[in-house]
Amino acid sequence: MPENVARKLIGAHLESGEMTPGEEIAIRIDQTLTQDATGTLVMQELESLGLDRARTEVSVQYVDHNLLQTDEKNAEDHEYLRTACERFGIWFSKPGNGVSHPTHMQRFGIPGKTMVGSDSHTPAAGSLGMLAIGVGGLEVALAIAGRPLNIRMPEIWGVRLEGRLPDWCSAKDVILEMLRRHDVKGGVNRIIEYHGPGLETLTAMDRHVIANMGAELGATTTVFPSDDEVRHFLRAEGREDDWIELVADDGATYDTEETIDLGDIEPLIAKPSSPGNVVPVREVAGEDISQVVIGSSANPGLRDFAIAAAMVDGRQTSPEVSFDVNPTSREILTDLTKMGATTSLVIGGARIHQAGCMGCIGMGQAPATGRNSLRTMPRNFPGRSGTKEDSVWLCSPETAAASALTGVISDPRDWARDTDVAYPELDFPQQHSINTAMLVEPPPAAEAAEVEPVKGPNISSLPELDALPDNIEAPVLLKVGDNISTDEISPAGARALPFRSNIPKLAEFSFTQVDDTYPDRARGADAGHVIVGGDNYGQGSSREHAAIAPRHLGLRVVIAKSFARIHWQNLANFGVLAVEFDDPADYDGIDRDDVVRLEDVRDALDAKDTLTVRNITKDRTFTVRHRLSSRQVADVLAGGLIPRLAAEEHSDEHRAEETVLQDSGEIS
Amino acid sequence: MPENVARKLIGAHLESGEMTPGEEIAIRIDQTLTQDATGTLVMQELESLGLDRARTEVSVQYVDHNLLQTDEKNAEDHEYLRTACERFGIWFSKPGNGVSHPTHMQRFGIPGKTMVGSDSHTPAAGSLGMLAIGVGGLEVALAIAGRPLNIRMPEIWGVRLEGRLPDWCSAKDVILEMLRRHDVKGGVNRIIEYHGPGLETLTAMDRHVIANMGAELGATTTVFPSDDEVRHFLRAEGREDDWIELVADDGATYDTEETIDLGDIEPLIAKPSSPGNVVPVREVAGEDISQVVIGSSANPGLRDFAIAAAMVDGRQTSPEVSFDVNPTSREILTDLTKMGATTSLVIGGARIHQAGCMGCIGMGQAPATGRNSLRTMPRNFPGRSGTKEDSVWLCSPETAAASALTGVISDPRDWARDTDVAYPELDFPQQHSINTAMLVEPPPAAEAAEVEPVKGPNISSLPELDALPDNIEAPVLLKVGDNISTDEISPAGARALPFRSNIPKLAEFSFTQVDDTYPDRARGADAGHVIVGGDNYGQGSSREHAAIAPRHLGLRVVIAKSFARIHWQNLANFGVLAVEFDDPADYDGIDRDDVVRLEDVRDALDAKDTLTVRNITKDRTFTVRHRLSSRQVADVLAGGLIPRLAAEEHSDEHRAEETVLQDSGEIS
Repeated sequence: MPENVARKLIGAHLESGEMTPGEEIAIRIDQTLTQDATGTLVMQELESLGLDRARTEVSVQYVDHNLLQTDEKNAEDHEYLRTACERFGIWFSKPGNGVSHPTHMQRFGIPGKTMVGSDSHTPAAGSLGMLAIGVGGLEVALAIAGRPLNIRMPEIWGVRLEGRLPDWCSAKDVILEMLRRHDVKGGVNRIIEYHGPGLETLTAMDRHVIANMGAELGATTTVFPSDDEVRHFLRAEGREDDWIELVADDGATYDTEETIDLGDIEPLIAKPSSPGNVVPVREVAGEDISQVVIGSSANPGLRDFAIAAAMVDGRQTSPEVSFDVNPTSREILTDLTKMGATTSLVIGGARIHQAGCMGCIGMGQAPATGRNSLRTMPRNFPGRSGTKEDSVWLCSPETAAASALTGVISDPRDWARDTDVAYPELDFPQQHSINTAMLVEPPPAAEAAEVEPVKGPNISSLPELDALPDNIEAPVLLKVGDNISTDEISPAGARALPFRSNIPKLAEFSFTQVDDTYPDRARGADAGHVIVGGDNYGQGSSREHAAIAPRHLGLRVVIAKSFARIHWQNLANFGVLAVEFDDPADYDGIDRDDVVRLEDVRDALDAKDTLTVRNITKDRTFTVRHRLSSRQVADVLAGGLIPRLAAEEHSDEHRAEETVLQDSGEIS
Repeated sequence: MPENVARKLIGAHLESGEMTPGEEIAIRIDQTLTQDATGTLVMQELESLGLDRARTEVSVQYVDHNLLQTDEKNAEDHEYLRTACERFGIWFSKPGNGVSHPTHMQRFGIPGKTMVGSDSHTPAAGSLGMLAIGVGGLEVALAIAGRPLNIRMPEIWGVRLEGRLPDWCSAKDVILEMLRRHDVKGGVNRIIEYHGPGLETLTAMDRHVIANMGAELGATTTVFPSDDEVRHFLRAEGREDDWIELVADDGATYDTEETIDLGDIEPLIAKPSSPGNVVPVREVAGEDISQVVIGSSANPGLRDFAIAAAMVDGRQTSPEVSFDVNPTSREILTDLTKMGATTSLVIGGARIHQAGCMGCIGMGQAPATGRNSLRTMPRNFPGRSGTKEDSVWLCSPETAAASALTGVISDPRDWARDTDVAYPELDFPQQHSINTAMLVEPPPAAEAAEVEPVKGPNISSLPELDALPDNIEAPVLLKVGDNISTDEISPAGARALPFRSNIPKLAEFSFTQVDDTYPDRARGADAGHVIVGGDNYGQGSSREHAAIAPRHLGLRVVIAKSFARIHWQNLANFGVLAVEFDDPADYDGIDRDDVVRLEDVRDALDAKDTLTVRNITKDRTFTVRHRLSSRQVADVLAGGLIPRLAAEEHSDEHRAEETVLQDSGEIS
């Protein structure tokens, strides 16, 4: 039977289960990626799990999220990561080396391989024909330890690309078109696979843009074939030997099908404050702006900076606009500089920042309250910029550069017409600059075993988590609406991010974007508490802190209309019961401060998919569904995956001297 | 009588007084410089004073200190400064344009002119034959309003330079040699004037390095002649027309004389945690380091980056070192990039940051606790880096680059010998890149009058200050040692600096580097409080926040062995009585929590130079001196300069409709 690329990738790595949508499968993992905002916790988890040495083909720890070093905590996190990587046999990409996703693609990505990453934009590696999935840190830790990834088999969504993008449109407009059509939930429980004749007009780095922001559709991941464009990319990176062809068989089909004619694309922009809030740029042209930022893993390629530089060259950005440029990596900055483009940008008014995520994760570059900021980044959730009442728009480098020059939101086609400028034809180097000196290879095993990771005073241990009570009677401390993101649950930004290695301190920031009384009220609720959510609860970033921090404050149950995949898994991993309203209308029948009761939870979870919830305050009852596998039920009941693994260990005398992870078999 | 350069400059601008050391003189001010960390307060003061339009030849507001934008406050400060500059007719240098001192030198500095700046490194402009003095913001505000600067005539300290620097030594080693000889108080009440045959071996930008860090000697300012090197510099900046010759007359003498043979200089380094703690690099070679930072106004020139780039070119910095490079301005980054030096630095492992002060003022780049950080910056006061227990060393770019390459503190001569490298001969452009597009010229007066400065919610008004009581009985809440810096009184860094426009909030950080119980105890002391200090109290930065914030918490009197000039003036400006122990031994007879009493303060200050202080707790009495002029006595008694000006205004019915500053006469 002719197979598509996604099923080929899964099939080649299937350790257990049936490849039927909805069925639980286990996939062997070849590579892992962690970044600093989630990575310190992964390293603490590897310590808790007693890992000796990484068992993946390649594991890489990047430092790209928090580079500001506003006090000693940041440098101490870097030192912990560096030495923990030595200890566990993980590559360490130094602060300033580059953003994880494009750097990984350039230096480590290999067609046909699988990867998990503790970053929701991990699917960017799908641009090379990899199966790359964003997960919580604990699942990355288990993958590093050689365990397979357990997920439910997603549907495969084939998107056929035809035609060729018009001038002044680029890959960002393609993924914005997908978001315009399908909004932030359109990809849930799906792998998006792009195919068709339009593909040959998109470079591997263009595909990175599209795969990266597939995360904004809620997709499990995005895959592209490994074709001549991928070969061309790997050749330019000096790694043609890593290329294999991986394309869909003739006649391959998809669970869902869709077509985009690239020729119909026009410049698009996501309005504040959701990546799904997409309109044509022309509809909002003329709005004043005070900031334009170019960079991030959503527009990471040399071309993305070079096109902006070509537009700015010989011109000046508006005096009222801060024009910020965040190079993606030092390799890309090197090539950009060799092309003369850095000079064009600097002369044109750019503030060139160090290579990293910077304002994309709210680490600096926060705009003034209510002032419009245009960014080539992937997300504009409320407050993610670091400014509570922000107004952030997402667009292509072309739209960003045109707007920086005019000082108002501008369709680049209009700007080109007004200034009589033709779409720049850029001349890129055949060979990209390659520089691995800031990628530190781990020492050999014998030497690594002697390394003691250096823990500064801000690096706490993981909190101990107790088992789920059999009867839960607790108040609803928060009721939130649809599409609550993990940025709202556990904010990033310059205030909170330095505490990512310190859960008790980080917990004080939980939900403060939504209701800053929550942490205090949670600490006052001795029997724990419940949160009620709408659709797509926990979308966005993969940060497991969004599960652990509220859990640390006593969160026991989340009742929502539906959950985003990664956060749902993170809740299970850390012993929070996530259930969905059987009838979404019941959402309207429950309010903040209502006390709810769930009885005989253990039996209920073991026996069936539905549970009964009694709203004591309102004196009414409703039913909820859980979608947990038996493995996940065991995790939740034990208080989380780590307590369960520890308990298993404890109960088996024969393995009393071994660590959990010296057992290479599958879990449960 | 043959005159030196300093006396010529003062003489040409003298409005009143005698040029006898110690006498109060008033000097006409041609230019002003403000930066963002002090400038928001200057703008608030201009509003309080009712200024219509700047009366100087040139006033420029730079944004270089706080560029991190960790939340909306920073961008709102930038917006306030931008619009206030429009309102008052002040040039606005946008965030990212560059560090104030080198940028001012490149674009605005003119030999023979006077300048005051609300930044203690303002004397850097002495490199062009200017008389440039760092003062508190309020004095800059008055200068902007056309008032002369009142100071006591300093001694002129002639430093004769002979010979030529050896390879691997540069201007930074010259000023470190001065600090090695004279420590951080050596220049108090002096203007340092460099002269002699060695001058012709130092470029104007080399002289900037030496003049800049004259502030670390406590000098009032530093001057160099305006000679062919200055002409050459201005020609390269496209401003040869601004050049005039200004050199000492043959046979000119100095109040104090000293000689440095440049040929005897060797690589020097200031150990933690004082710029005066200087030793030869060879004495501390081999110490592990974790960070090297190149940049700041203390080593701002193209050559300072280019020499480091030449040393790093084709090599890799140590994997255990973070190698941070802060370009001084976008003009310098442009030239550095055109020379290929940016590429050498990036390939060699540098994290290239945006143009600005960055880690020099503790805005990012904070090192890990206790780990050695080598910096080409001017200051290493405790905690200034943003890390409470820091270990910061100050050195030349040559020493910094050699150490970054080896991973340990290294004498660049040893590194050169070990690697068989000759001292690089650098080829600089004859014409520097010039780019004024981020220097926003103020609009014409009529248009400016219509501008309403935009004030975000973090921008408070100046606190109201009451008059000094005639009888003060208050506890000593702090007793500190020698050389307490304004960094310790009112810290900069990423936590505090965002509140520089918000005195009530900023006050919470006062003295927390020294004793974090101080703000609470101060608020609890209803009758105000007293601080006891050692020698050179208030050295370092010019920030008037170090006077206003403790004053806001109730500080009434500081009794110290001696004061640093700018802070002493700032205390008077904001109504704090600063007095010196008549007998320094009395310092030992007073302790924290002692209650002291000063009686009939008004009469005492008016009548004589000494006052009697009764230590009620210890039941003893001692005398203190004040060095206040009658003008300053009036300021202190009124509660500060602003209340006094307001009171004068109020008492004169004929001028009831006018603002204070429509009176162009001198302050009596």
